[in-house]
This record gives sequence, C-alpha cells and structure tokens, in this order.
Amino acid sequence: MGKRILIIGGVTGGASAAARIRRLDADASITIFERGEHVSFSNCSLPYYLSRTVEEADYLLVMTPEGFRDSYDIEVRTNSEVLAIDRESKKIRVKDKIAGEEYEEAYDELVLSPGAAPIRPRSIEGVFLPHVFTVRNVNDIVNLDQYVREKDRHNVAVIGGGFIGLEVAENLKESGKHVAVVEAADQVMAPFDYDMSQILHKELLDHGVELYLGDGVKAIAEDHVTLVSGRKIPADVVVLAIGVLPETSLAKDAGLELGVTGAIKVSPDFRTSDPHIYAVGDAIEVYNSLTRKPAKLPLAGPAQRQARTAADAICGKGGANKGVIGSCAVRIFGMNAAATGLNEKTAKQNGIPCDYVYTMAMDKVGLMPGSAPAHFKLVFEVPTGRILGAQSIGAGNVDKRIDVIATMIAMNGTLEDLKELELCYSPIFGTARDIVNQAALVALNVLHGVFRQVHVSDVRELVESGAYIVDVRTPEEFAEGHLKGAVNIPLGELRQRVSEIPEDCPVYLHCRTSQRSYNAIMALKGRGYENVYNISGSFLGISFYEYYMDTVTGREKILTDYNFM
Amino acid sequence: MGKRILIIGGVTGGASAAARIRRLDADASITIFERGEHVSFSNCSLPYYLSRTVEEADYLLVMTPEGFRDSYDIEVRTNSEVLAIDRESKKIRVKDKIAGEEYEEAYDELVLSPGAAPIRPRSIEGVFLPHVFTVRNVNDIVNLDQYVREKDRHNVAVIGGGFIGLEVAENLKESGKHVAVVEAADQVMAPFDYDMSQILHKELLDHGVELYLGDGVKAIAEDHVTLVSGRKIPADVVVLAIGVLPETSLAKDAGLELGVTGAIKVSPDFRTSDPHIYAVGDAIEVYNSLTRKPAKLPLAGPAQRQARTAADAICGKGGANKGVIGSCAVRIFGMNAAATGLNEKTAKQNGIPCDYVYTMAMDKVGLMPGSAPAHFKLVFEVPTGRILGAQSIGAGNVDKRIDVIATMIAMNGTLEDLKELELCYSPIFGTARDIVNQAALVALNVLHGVFRQVHVSDVRELVESGAYIVDVRTPEEFAEGHLKGAVNIPLGELRQRVSEIPEDCPVYLHCRTSQRSYNAIMALKGRGYENVYNISGSFLGISFYEYYMDTVTGREKILTDYNFM
Repeated sequence: MGKRILIIGGVTGGASAAARIRRLDADASITIFERGEHVSFSNCSLPYYLSRTVEEADYLLVMTPEGFRDSYDIEVRTNSEVLAIDRESKKIRVKDKIAGEEYEEAYDELVLSPGAAPIRPRSIEGVFLPHVFTVRNVNDIVNLDQYVREKDRHNVAVIGGGFIGLEVAENLKESGKHVAVVEAADQVMAPFDYDMSQILHKELLDHGVELYLGDGVKAIAEDHVTLVSGRKIPADVVVLAIGVLPETSLAKDAGLELGVTGAIKVSPDFRTSDPHIYAVGDAIEVYNSLTRKPAKLPLAGPAQRQARTAADAICGKGGANKGVIGSCAVRIFGMNAAATGLNEKTAKQNGIPCDYVYTMAMDKVGLMPGSAPAHFKLVFEVPTGRILGAQSIGAGNVDKRIDVIATMIAMNGTLEDLKELELCYSPIFGTARDIVNQAALVALNVLHGVFRQVHVSDVRELVESGAYIVDVRTPEEFAEGHLKGAVNIPLGELRQRVSEIPEDCPVYLHCRTSQRSYNAIMALKGRGYENVYNISGSFLGISFYEYYMDTVTGREKILTDYNFM
Repeated sequence: MGKRILIIGGVTGGASAAARIRRLDADASITIFERGEHVSFSNCSLPYYLSRTVEEADYLLVMTPEGFRDSYDIEVRTNSEVLAIDRESKKIRVKDKIAGEEYEEAYDELVLSPGAAPIRPRSIEGVFLPHVFTVRNVNDIVNLDQYVREKDRHNVAVIGGGFIGLEVAENLKESGKHVAVVEAADQVMAPFDYDMSQILHKELLDHGVELYLGDGVKAIAEDHVTLVSGRKIPADVVVLAIGVLPETSLAKDAGLELGVTGAIKVSPDFRTSDPHIYAVGDAIEVYNSLTRKPAKLPLAGPAQRQARTAADAICGKGGANKGVIGSCAVRIFGMNAAATGLNEKTAKQNGIPCDYVYTMAMDKVGLMPGSAPAHFKLVFEVPTGRILGAQSIGAGNVDKRIDVIATMIAMNGTLEDLKELELCYSPIFGTARDIVNQAALVALNVLHGVFRQVHVSDVRELVESGAYIVDVRTPEEFAEGHLKGAVNIPLGELRQRVSEIPEDCPVYLHCRTSQRSYNAIMALKGRGYENVYNISGSFLGISFYEYYMDTVTGREKILTDYNFM
C-alpha cells in the first residue's frame, strides 16, 4: 500500500499537485477534497461566459471527477468541505455537504490549496443583498449570468478595477449592459503605472464604460450604489471585485504559521510549519525575487509551478522555487495589456534606484494591415542597467513582448543584453528592431545621460510655467492638436531654424512618439545645446495622460486638441 | 569641417549606419551612394505588394532622399553605382547612371553595405528570358507585378522554397494565380527540421500550391519549366528565389579580405581588412555564436545591429557584437512559423551532442475562440540541458514564443530556467503553463531519462515490423483514423487493461499530442514496465509527417485515415 495523500482544494494548485504526484508515484492513494461543486475549472475564463465568448458554462470545466478517476486513479470528492486538521493524529475532518454528514480521513501527507476568497467588506451597507455578486467559481458566474438575464437587469456597477473587475465589465458591456466601474485608487489595474493606466481609462470610456476613480463604495441599495463621495450610481446588479484574501482559517486553526502578509507561510519546497503539510496557490505567501520581500500573488501560473514543486518534494525529489516576479496580462476591449516585474511606482516604493523609458514603437511594419503603436514602459536599475520590469499596452501583440522581458528578468538581463536580442522578424509580425530592442536603446541613452527626459506628469507644470517646448512634428500634425504655447519646428526644418531656439534656458522637445524628438535632441546637442530634455511619451503619451482628467473633471486643458492614432 | 563619411548602399545596413553616425556626430559630412532608384525601403514587405496587402508600391519606401536630407542632413545619391575603391588615395569612383558620368569622391571612413544579389544560375537554360524574375528591390516587384497583370499570366513557377519563394508564392496565389513551388531539397524552409517542414508542406498543398520537392530546374522555356527529373511544369512566369550571394566584387577588387564563406570578412566592430573601411549587412560574414563558426545570414535585424556597431566604432565608441543565432519568422497562408538557434539537423551536423522534444500544446486556453495547437520543437544540449534552438508552427502566435527561446539562448538559459519562466497569462493569450514551459518540462523528462522517445520518422518502420503500438486516445478518435496495427487502450481504461500489454517487448505509446501518452507511460513505468517509448509528436505529428509523401507518391499508407484538428 502506498502513501495516503489528501489534497484540500481541487482547482489549479490542488489538481496540478494531484496529477503530478500520480505521475511520480503509481502506488500512492490520492484524494482531492473540494468544497465546491466542480474541480479543475478555468477560473481565468469565467468572465467570458457572460458575453458567451465561452458559449456554455460546462466548457469551463477542464476535468471532471470521473476524468481524474479514469485517467489518473485519483479520487475526487466534491461538495466536501474540510472543517479541521488534526495534526497530531494526521487526520482531517470532512463535511459531506450533500449528505450533511461529517467524517475523518487520515493522511501521510496533506496539501492545502484552498485558494483565496473575494473580499466582501461588512462595512459596506447592503453588501449581502441578493443582487450583489462575487466571481470565484463556475456557480458564481452562472448565478450572476442567470440573475442578469432572468431579471432583465441593465445597470451594472462593478466595484474594483483589477483583472476580474475589468474582465467582468467588458463581458457584461459586450452582452449589452450599462456598466460602471468604481475603483478606490486613482487608476485601474495596479500592476501598471499611473501614466500607462490612462490608456486603459480611455479605452474603457471609449467603449461606454463609466469610470469612477478615487472613490469607494459606501452603501448598496436595491437600485443604486452610493459612493464615499456621495455620488449615487444607478445599479440593479453589483459585482464585487475588490480583491481576494487567502483562505487561511483552516491553516490558522491547525496552528500553522502565517506570514507577514497574512497568507500561509511556506518553506522553499512549499512545506508549511508542519513537515507533513504542504500549501500552494492563492493561499500562500510567496517570495518576490525583485523586491526580495514576501508577497501575495493569486495567479494561476505560479500556482501550477508551486504545485509541481510541492509534489516533487512529497515524492522525494528536489524542486525549484524561483520566487515570483508578477507577470500578468489582460485584454480590455481593443487594447491588450501586459506587465511583468516592478513598475516605476513599486520600484521606488521599495527604494530600488531606478529609471524608466516610455516608448511607442509600431508593433509591426507600419505599412502592414493592423499595425499599431505599442505603448511600452521599461523600468531598469541604476547604475547597473539591470532590467526590473515592463508594461505594454496596444491593439496588437504586447503580452509576448512582455514575456521576453520576463525572460530577461529571470536571467538577470541588462539593457545591453536586451538591445542585442536577435528576435524573429517578418513585417507581418514585427519590425527588424523590435519594440523591446528599441526600448533598450532609448533606456541606454537615458542611463548614460545621452539625453535627459521629463516625466509626462510634469508637462502640465511646464506648460503653465511657460517653459520653452519645441514640437518637432509636421505643421499638419501640429494643426490637429498641440500643447498650448509649444513652438512648432518640424525636424526637417530644425537645422535651418536652430537660431530660433534659446540657449540660455531649458528646452523641452517632443514629437509624436519620441523618435523624431530624439534625433532633434541629438542635433541640438551637436550644436552645443546642453539643457535639452525629451518629454517622455511624447505627444501620444501626453494626450493619453491628460485625456481622462480633462474629460472627467473639465479642468483647463493644456492641449488644443487630442490627436490619437 | 567634420569627417567625410561615404556609405555604399542605402537600404537597411547603409541607411541605419548613416542615421546613427549623424546622431553621434553633428559635424560629419555623410553621403549615401545607392545603385538603385530607392533608398531605405522595406525589403521584407516586397512580396506583399503582389496581393495588394501593401496597396501601393510607394508605401514600401520607408524614407526618401529628401527625408534623409531634411531630417538627418545626410546626402543621398540614388542611381549612383560605385565602380571602384582606391584605398591608397581613399577615394571611390562613382557612376551617375542617369547622367552617364563618372566621378571620384574622397572619404575619411567608408561603409560598405552592398547587400546580396539573387542567384541566377547560368547553368539553367533560359534563365535570362524576359519572363524570369528575381525579387530584390521595389522595381523588381513592380516589374513582376506589371508583367503578370499586363500580360495576363496565370501559371507561375517559383523556384526555391525559402522565405522569399514562399512569400511570393503565397501572395501570387492570393491574387488568383496558379502557383507551383520547385525546391531542390526535400523540404521547404531550411531553418526547420524535416519533421516540422511537413506541416508547411500540407499548408501549401491545402491552399492549392503545387509542390515539387527534391527536384531542381534544368531549363526554362516560354510556357514551361523542365525539371531535372524530366517533369515539365506549365509556367508563363518564373520567379527565381534560390538564394542570394553577397555582393563582394567591389570589396574583392579593392583587395579586401573575404572570409571562408566567400562573404566580406570583418573585425568584431565590423571593420574590413582596411581600417578605414567598414562593412555591414548581407555582404559580410557573421559569427554564429552557437556553432562557433563563420556564417552568412542575410536578415534585416542583424544588419541593423551591425550598422549601429560600425557607426559607433567610426565615432570612437565601443560597440557590441554578439554574433548571430538566426531567428526568423514567416507566415504561410494560415500557418505562422518561426525558428531560432540550431535545429536538430544543424546541431547534429556540427557535432553538438543534443536531443529534442516535439510538443503540441494549445496556444491559448482550449475553450477560447481561435485556440489552436502550436507544433513546437525544442533542441537542447546533452548533458547540460542548455537550450540550443526551437521551431514552432501554428495558426496562432508562435513567433513571440520563439522570441522567448531566442532570449533564453542569448542568456545561456537551460531547460530548468525555461520550465520556471513566469510568463504573462490570460486565457485570451495563452495557458497558465505556456507552450515553452511545457516543452521544457517534457525535455527535462527526456534529458533525465524519465521516459524515452522515438522519432516520428521511425514510425513507419515500427508499423511495418509489427511493433507493439498502443494508441491511448478515445475509441471515437481511434475510429476517425489510426496507425495500422495499433492497439487502442484509452488512457481511462489503461489501469484496468494493463494485463493486455506485453512486458517482454518494447511498447510504443502515443495519443494525439503526447499529453495522455505521457501519463500512460508514467502509469506503466509505475507498474514495472521498463521498455516503454513515447512516439514524439504523437498522432498529430505522425499524420503531418506522413501526409505529404502519401499524397504525392501514393505509397502504401500506415494510417487508416488522417485526423487533423
């Protein structure tokens, strides 16, 4: 008789661990206990059922209990809630939710993969009303969908602008609903810096999603939501997507150690403080290898890797634990967005000396159908040039470019390495100098002080203080929209008109994407100008940066008009 | 007065070098001499004019001579052929092809970027007939296009199954022509191994392109082409895309050293044997950092990097030279294909101890619209597990996955590193365990002898010799097509039916993509079976591997029927 291995939780981490253990150990007895009705479903695909991108809810199920039994000789008990762990006697107490009975099971090794639960703050009045939903499993999304359809509800308030919130918002919007997103922070999607998030804000607004930033929810009533600011939003359906909290009660009650983040603390091979109990997935505390600090990262990819390492450890094999860097991707209507590693904000919060560049190269050769600019922000360590993180947003392929950066981070790559990467090129797919190479080249210029740059957030102050700003785009582009007070000297005329540019004050340059302004800066430097700055993000970046605030608050504009591609 | 820098050739390498030199040196006098009518056009986009994917030929021009003058203060002389270099007096002799006049220009530094010329073998009878075309520049593609349209030609023979040949074939087919591709090798697209190329062969056949492999051209007549085999193909237009040869005559006549490959030999900073003459682009010999041998690699990405390093050297800055690994991508109708580093064939030819895996994971979560299997072949060094190369072909995003592998190669990554990569995941874009992670996991199993595999090319012999082959797919899949003589034991029944499987002979297993057969192998190993093999590529790979030969030669089939996704 083999080892008796019990696994609590049958979604990503639990299912992966079970399958891996079976492959390594034909004799083990493996049982998965799942509180919910389903095991091994595609969590990340749940929102896509709302728009019928995923046509049937059943399609969300990756594997059935029968599949586990037949293909893996693994027993799955659904609707089975584990109530307690008795570490001394190595037993768990289980409640069969259908039969209403409780029983015990003994284990040799136990794996905890209980996941994380959506936050439902009791401080919000009305948070338990029947039209308030959270999204965690297949039943949740089916219930939400049924409610919206059967009750013919049209006004949805999504609370929280993270992955789940925005995906739910998109899919309900696509299914014809009126959708408002409420987010307490001043931006959606925390993995992105404030400047980059403005592109997402515009995309949401452009698709008719209402956006309430910097405002929380105070109370939920049957037909509306009241925000902290006092504003009232009509809403007959509310989706809470504020975030998740690791499910730690079972571990805590069993006296297992929790980490500083409140999640379950684990060893390098995902063992808890009890050597016969492992833990993986959203419930555990992970190690961020860039900040070198404990963190929570409820994502499927890391959960799968953790499950594998835990299974290897249970079966007496050494396993890997490289920590996490936090790679993620999301689609918001026509924009794809991805990020990895540290953004400017978190790098600075962690006291890591760093700088960044914000580029907007085309994602494929400009004359090819569907080519579009990819907004790309690259964060690097100073003075080493070591790559710390990147974010990209665009209509085309951005996530796999961020994968290249994630790979560089994992391999301790520097800007020099990145600029030399020999990537695949066809005009159908990219450019001979890819976005990531281009970002590295610009970043090296910043690192080596070849030119200096100002942040897009500083442009308003420059304009208001009457700084000397040169717009080197063509007169036609300038006419379509420009910064108030900017001087238009097209790059092609710069050499003839250089005498117009004062030498005794700072000169700030921009074009549309910083390609022309870079050449202009180098030309001015060659002519002895020392005090020249590139405006990071250039006109396209400025336009995005100002758009949301200008649209929403009606404050005085610093642009005569916006000029998006 | 600044340095006088002359540049011969105004396309990728020449144009890039010129622009970079200008950024670094405001005072230099820079002149580009281009033999053709245009500078700085998008070579790689040329074929797409034939199908009007690129609507106007003018769109192919990236930069005009006026643009160079206005934006960069760089003089461009088109239709200007450089006839000779006088190294002693540091002068070049130029022929103005319009005026018909010759003159001399003095230089301080000279950059050669003459490119490579399409091969037009005199040994082929009729190779200079007016309906025989090559594709190198904008005029070439316009001439071919005009000829086909004005003469209303319909039968095209494309000689050569490399990038240009296949892209021309695709675009002429898309524009309604009848197209035959003739290739002397037994496969198209040399960067891919023979097994992977079969997927491309099927894609070409499926789109009505005739394919003549392992056959060369003997003679071209006005209405047909005669192959070496004696076969005659109706053809009233012939496109020669056999390959290119570096343009070395100018360098050779000037006494500059050539390398063993026949291309111009250069120093690490792209200096020729004359310290005042640099050379970049398709005309030079590069260093392959994986084989550690000199090579030719006529691609745009490397040319741009070489140009930058040469420009840096001219301006007194140190530059990078990481050699090349040969990353490339192509689209052939509905299939995207990309490769980097060494394939199995070249690794073995170079005596590098290596092994490979051939996987077929889904490119995104299976329930998402448009998900498709990505054929992925990963080649790694034995015993180190260092990644040597990869090839991928599929309907979805494969090129950027190959970029991740190219990044790993550049950073000396191993399979262990690759399996742990934390990549961006959304079901819209990929799977939680990406194709590249998955390939690394399988490769580690092969490296560590967890299971053994046989090559897809050995399956025919296995079938013919009556080997014991177990197909672990479902009965429904089996009924749609299977290997003759294979025993169908679905994975779900394996544990019950294990006694049917003999223990005294080798057992070969496959499913559709090797995911189920992997689990089956581990189950058998757990039950004491030692002599079990996975069939690399599984049923999908076998189907592709056999399809072309079966279709074309009518040889006896080893499959009852094909069963593609």
